[in-house]
Amino acid sequence: VTGRAAIVAVGSELLGSTRADTNSLWLSARLEEAGIPVVRKACVGDDAAEIRAELGLALSRAPLVVCTGGLGPTGDDLTKEAVAAHFGRRLVPDRAVLAVLRERWERRGLPMPDVNAKQALAVEGARLLSNPYGTAPGVLLEDSGRLVGLLPGVPREMRAMFDGHVLPEVRRRFGGPRRYRRVLRVASLGESAVEELVAPVYARWPESVFTILGGAGEVQIHLIAAGEEKEAQRTLDAQTRDFDEALGGRIYGRDEETLESVVGRLLRERGKSLALAESCTGGLIAERLTRVPGSSEYFFGAVVSYSNHSKSQLLGVRPESLETFGAVSSEVASEMAAGALERFHSDYALAATGVAGPGGGSEDKPVGMVWLALCSRGASRTRLLRLPGSRGLVRAWASTTALEMLRKEVVRG
Amino acid sequence: VTGRAAIVAVGSELLGSTRADTNSLWLSARLEEAGIPVVRKACVGDDAAEIRAELGLALSRAPLVVCTGGLGPTGDDLTKEAVAAHFGRRLVPDRAVLAVLRERWERRGLPMPDVNAKQALAVEGARLLSNPYGTAPGVLLEDSGRLVGLLPGVPREMRAMFDGHVLPEVRRRFGGPRRYRRVLRVASLGESAVEELVAPVYARWPESVFTILGGAGEVQIHLIAAGEEKEAQRTLDAQTRDFDEALGGRIYGRDEETLESVVGRLLRERGKSLALAESCTGGLIAERLTRVPGSSEYFFGAVVSYSNHSKSQLLGVRPESLETFGAVSSEVASEMAAGALERFHSDYALAATGVAGPGGGSEDKPVGMVWLALCSRGASRTRLLRLPGSRGLVRAWASTTALEMLRKEVVRG
Repeated sequence: VTGRAAIVAVGSELLGSTRADTNSLWLSARLEEAGIPVVRKACVGDDAAEIRAELGLALSRAPLVVCTGGLGPTGDDLTKEAVAAHFGRRLVPDRAVLAVLRERWERRGLPMPDVNAKQALAVEGARLLSNPYGTAPGVLLEDSGRLVGLLPGVPREMRAMFDGHVLPEVRRRFGGPRRYRRVLRVASLGESAVEELVAPVYARWPESVFTILGGAGEVQIHLIAAGEEKEAQRTLDAQTRDFDEALGGRIYGRDEETLESVVGRLLRERGKSLALAESCTGGLIAERLTRVPGSSEYFFGAVVSYSNHSKSQLLGVRPESLETFGAVSSEVASEMAAGALERFHSDYALAATGVAGPGGGSEDKPVGMVWLALCSRGASRTRLLRLPGSRGLVRAWASTTALEMLRKEVVRG
Repeated sequence: VTGRAAIVAVGSELLGSTRADTNSLWLSARLEEAGIPVVRKACVGDDAAEIRAELGLALSRAPLVVCTGGLGPTGDDLTKEAVAAHFGRRLVPDRAVLAVLRERWERRGLPMPDVNAKQALAVEGARLLSNPYGTAPGVLLEDSGRLVGLLPGVPREMRAMFDGHVLPEVRRRFGGPRRYRRVLRVASLGESAVEELVAPVYARWPESVFTILGGAGEVQIHLIAAGEEKEAQRTLDAQTRDFDEALGGRIYGRDEETLESVVGRLLRERGKSLALAESCTGGLIAERLTRVPGSSEYFFGAVVSYSNHSKSQLLGVRPESLETFGAVSSEVASEMAAGALERFHSDYALAATGVAGPGGGSEDKPVGMVWLALCSRGASRTRLLRLPGSRGLVRAWASTTALEMLRKEVVRG
């Protein structure tokens, strides 16, 4: 039987303006992989009536309900009570769990506060689930073909307990064909440009669901294939080839890969090094590259030259170039890259100079105009971008386009 | 009468693993300011039965329901239909709205697609709300003391229409005492350290609700005061003074201010300039400073020296210092800052050198060890940090602590 799932997050803090429920995103991914669609999700406060009302609706819409939060020791923690009430069951102390809790407190050299005994209450006839990282045990309850999992709200505890206790049971009862997800990543093309290029792939796979998600300077294509793993992966591989062909080699990476990690891997594999000269991107390209552990192997450094003086002083840009062409020009971008290459003794150097906005634009050089330069031993080229959007978007697009320019160059090698 | 609100987000994409409902956070803030608590929120897919089920529950829990999404022209867009069905009302074409839609398409030089006529359907007896930014009109429906607002899912459209059409009506019917929020921001102290320092303030304001939120290198204290604006602001001012005193001047800013914008404002006000020498932070401090529009007025630039060679070559760090003390040392941090000050001709220079991890640590210099240096004309000092956590956290904490060190220095100035 294929199931349907509902997710309920309990906690008054989730109803304010500062905290989003992110547990449900993780749970959705896990359930999707298990072939179980999520049909609804909700957040309710630490309020017995609200929890019971939501639980009633969730169970009427889906045979599987996963609740997170509200399992702590205080009077605010009411999830277990609400579930017991819904199913007309009592809460009964679980001696074994009580002993484990007491021992955990003793190991810390503390007597267990009385309120914590509440955490050892089990819903009659349901399994208490051990928590490897915290004191709140979970609950797994079955009733007339329906399954309810109660898990703590702390992500690390929730995830471990879902994978360890709930998922195996869920798969056994409700699991549809397993689903496998793959994410293809494309840099420095807009969402609509990608949509247009990949239209033929959609036509070739009329039964498949593809999702295209756009971000700042990056587009993700999500593929999902159901069924037996080997065959599903073969389908994903074939679809990946089709997308790659349609996009002319613009797919830089997969799944969790980032553009900066792919660029780093390529440089490392080829034994090449990189330096930067950043003006309008203000250090963003360096910051992205150095997020990657071990990046000091191939990244030598950057000059962030936010003044004309520093472009000359630290990168050797000729004052005549600045005067004649202006700081935002192909010539200055080139000289910045050449200066970085020479001073850092790297194999490649990237430079970016432009108008990030919102001020500083002119008719000739409007906000969003950015010159990129890529210099290697013996070759140099520049590229002009005209980017729309806010300061943040201009910087993001410029940094991504610069890294993508480098990636292609290193691949060509 | 004080109301209670429920929020419903419609859209199958919100049930996947990639997209969180963020509209509800914004709506919660607006409703909170209007004195209306949100008692539940839910996401349902583009499915008539699921939307109706949720709507029924939401209206049974709260007299005010705000729905976002599902108002587009396609067969997937079902929110209006579900609401009409719930209240037993018909959908009727609104001639005026139809004319506006046609005109909007004509202005684009396009005939209106037939499906878009669906957007001109009104729920009988309800108001259609004009959309200043898009084609989907909203709906405001009243029935037996309950109020339902249907708004598009696009944030910009949703926000304008909520503020323009829904909020005034909501205030008139359900508004409790207005609430005013203030956020106080503290840099480079942990959440528990802040909790400890501000405990006396909690005791002094037993009736007030304060929320402390921790992030990477920053803690926010959220204050809320209800009632007449002037008095509420006086209360917030008094509480702010108490927190400021308890925290010994560590509150760097309020509400939407960022540490980099505050540092920037202080430098500009005093006519001072800044340069950076970054090693372990890899450009993050420069990137943060240059997020601020107009930062080129006071930020001259940075050297990101990710190799020993570049520390000597570009910053003038003495090779003997690198050899004797190592790159992660008070001496090298000092020389990096002095080098940046000299080369960029700035009034202040900050330097950071450390082990960001996960590799590269040793017994003497473990992961998380960071030396900061702050140099101004005639003075220099260093500070040692031992930071826990991931590479990302070490970098975030180091950059925040460096900026906070500078902020205090400029304030003392």
